[in-house]
Amino acid sequence: MALIRDLTDDEARAALVNKWGDTEPGVIPAWVAEMDYAVAEPITAAVIAAVERGEVSYPLYLRSGGALGAAYARFAERHYGEQVDPERVLPTADVTFGVRTALDVLSDPGPMVLPLPAYDPQHGLAQITHREQWDLPVDPDGASYVVDLDALDALFAKGARTLLLTQPHNPAGHVHTRAELEGIRDVVTRHGGRVISDEIHGALVLPGAEHVPYLSIEGAADHAVAVVAASKAFNIPGLKCAQIVTGDDATRDVLRDIPMAQNESWGSLGVVGTIAAYEQGDAWLAALIERLDQQRSLLRQLLAEQLPDARMRPLEATYLAWVDLRAYGHDDPSTVLRRGGVRVSPGHGYWPGLTGHVRLNIATSPDRLTEIVRRMAAALT
Amino acid sequence: MALIRDLTDDEARAALVNKWGDTEPGVIPAWVAEMDYAVAEPITAAVIAAVERGEVSYPLYLRSGGALGAAYARFAERHYGEQVDPERVLPTADVTFGVRTALDVLSDPGPMVLPLPAYDPQHGLAQITHREQWDLPVDPDGASYVVDLDALDALFAKGARTLLLTQPHNPAGHVHTRAELEGIRDVVTRHGGRVISDEIHGALVLPGAEHVPYLSIEGAADHAVAVVAASKAFNIPGLKCAQIVTGDDATRDVLRDIPMAQNESWGSLGVVGTIAAYEQGDAWLAALIERLDQQRSLLRQLLAEQLPDARMRPLEATYLAWVDLRAYGHDDPSTVLRRGGVRVSPGHGYWPGLTGHVRLNIATSPDRLTEIVRRMAAALT
Repeated sequence: MALIRDLTDDEARAALVNKWGDTEPGVIPAWVAEMDYAVAEPITAAVIAAVERGEVSYPLYLRSGGALGAAYARFAERHYGEQVDPERVLPTADVTFGVRTALDVLSDPGPMVLPLPAYDPQHGLAQITHREQWDLPVDPDGASYVVDLDALDALFAKGARTLLLTQPHNPAGHVHTRAELEGIRDVVTRHGGRVISDEIHGALVLPGAEHVPYLSIEGAADHAVAVVAASKAFNIPGLKCAQIVTGDDATRDVLRDIPMAQNESWGSLGVVGTIAAYEQGDAWLAALIERLDQQRSLLRQLLAEQLPDARMRPLEATYLAWVDLRAYGHDDPSTVLRRGGVRVSPGHGYWPGLTGHVRLNIATSPDRLTEIVRRMAAALT
Repeated sequence: MALIRDLTDDEARAALVNKWGDTEPGVIPAWVAEMDYAVAEPITAAVIAAVERGEVSYPLYLRSGGALGAAYARFAERHYGEQVDPERVLPTADVTFGVRTALDVLSDPGPMVLPLPAYDPQHGLAQITHREQWDLPVDPDGASYVVDLDALDALFAKGARTLLLTQPHNPAGHVHTRAELEGIRDVVTRHGGRVISDEIHGALVLPGAEHVPYLSIEGAADHAVAVVAASKAFNIPGLKCAQIVTGDDATRDVLRDIPMAQNESWGSLGVVGTIAAYEQGDAWLAALIERLDQQRSLLRQLLAEQLPDARMRPLEATYLAWVDLRAYGHDDPSTVLRRGGVRVSPGHGYWPGLTGHVRLNIATSPDRLTEIVRRMAAALT
């Protein structure tokens, strides 16, 4: 049996209660970042066994390390060639919560730089940690999504203290090269700033690119943390567990010593499911990457045939395509598409004020993706 | 078969990975607030069915109401005779996180009053929301745990803005009467302050007392929220779901309109398990209350026989006994007891600087409780 099993519509509606359950019947959901595939069998088995033995209790209250840290360290070594000290890995509820915690605890109170477009919940992070948010827009007509280092330098020179980096990037699909990350490091360290690197899509880099953890860049350890999770690559965000990866003991200790109430909301089944994913998920993940690579090619072909004026930068990672539909003349194509039977995420959620863009989730069956683009073309042309 | 099934030591060690798993073999764990009983069958069945259908995804992103709000409203009506508008119930990750969110979002930035003793994670809440914490100690020699209204009034007169009320009280086991709550309301409203009422133990009121939700007090709706959960009464804290109950639309709307990143970490299985608990848990809960009532009587009898100088206020609710062991002459009895084979929670975790007290978890089998007190007496006398 194939490792990647497509959910039927009925199965998807029962499993993905937000993505499918919150979308009107007849409309294909291609919005929120969840995949229309069954969860890997070793994860399901581990979680069910945990529920059967009653492990719906408080998780082992380890502030760092433990089985979770060890599992992530082994995963990072196998997949990224990164040496992670398991004792420097801390649990947290989810990636956005981990980013919030790191920002709150580690960063100076000065402004946070948010490259645009940016994952929508990231837009509230500066505000809720009592900081200013300073946007750093990428050129929507540029060839690739790369942070403009001069603009970044100017923001830090004006007083910015933290860069929220998302890499691989959601929604742009860009994978930062080592050279790009070194350029960012040089700017940030010049100003004594910090980097929080949201690497939730690290395991979803597609053939042709390579995920370089920010902490593997020389000199990153003392000014950066990464926030990672199995939740995105393995489709288990409801179990609640992410990890904050620190590069030195000093940073780890600061995070470990915060009041319990500031970081304690991870789930027992999140720990169980995450360890199963990291330790027993490699075969499933390899099959997933193969499938997503095929979906990426299929999307490219379908758009070329049916929506030739749609523009996309190379989708190097994630299953989320950032599509420029400005040529079709709608400020908010997502509303036109929804009436046409496809629900995508409106681009202005990632970049307030930006028109003509959508984020399209391709982690579905080839048949559904084919129907999605057919409906998109019918609605837009 | 009895509805309340005692876990064997091996089962408890596998299920309660923090309470038992983090305690050295040979020592009976009677510390953190989890029960040595199997989870109610309807909850386990509902959660396993959800995992099997793949509902480990994002929960339905409803900011208020929905099936969760409706289930809580029905539960509150049956158990407390309280009329709750389901649309005024909001999900949150856990009770402490809900309290943090309410404090952060609804309260003025002025000091928060924390009656002592107080649940240990509550001690960090003021700090992480950038407030001062003003302690309001109860008389450790008093007959019952009641907030001193004159002292409370003096704190609000000096500038306090929020009272963090815990009722039923952990660790004191006190159930606030309607008259006591009205007294609190009068003080708080006189100063235009707010109340956040942690009612996680509401369903664990024992025979002889009655849980009065703070929001059911006349005039409470516009200055208070309650934070509740099925997690404590049904032993499912690892699933991650609590509820913030608001008393009017204005308060609800403020909480609903905060940035997504400020309140989004509840789990999909938390929603499933909580609804199962509220909708199908009444018979199990009734059996639990009967068992806890028996354990309470057994503790009283065992202490009278073997530790006659231990003092306890009436345990009106919860399965957590606040025991004054000062007569036995140890500043920190918990370390003495642990060497003697029982792990309890040290009293100074709830009241920094207080000596001679422990919190003892009685939610176990009669045999274990008997052995616990035997070991306590051997260690202390």
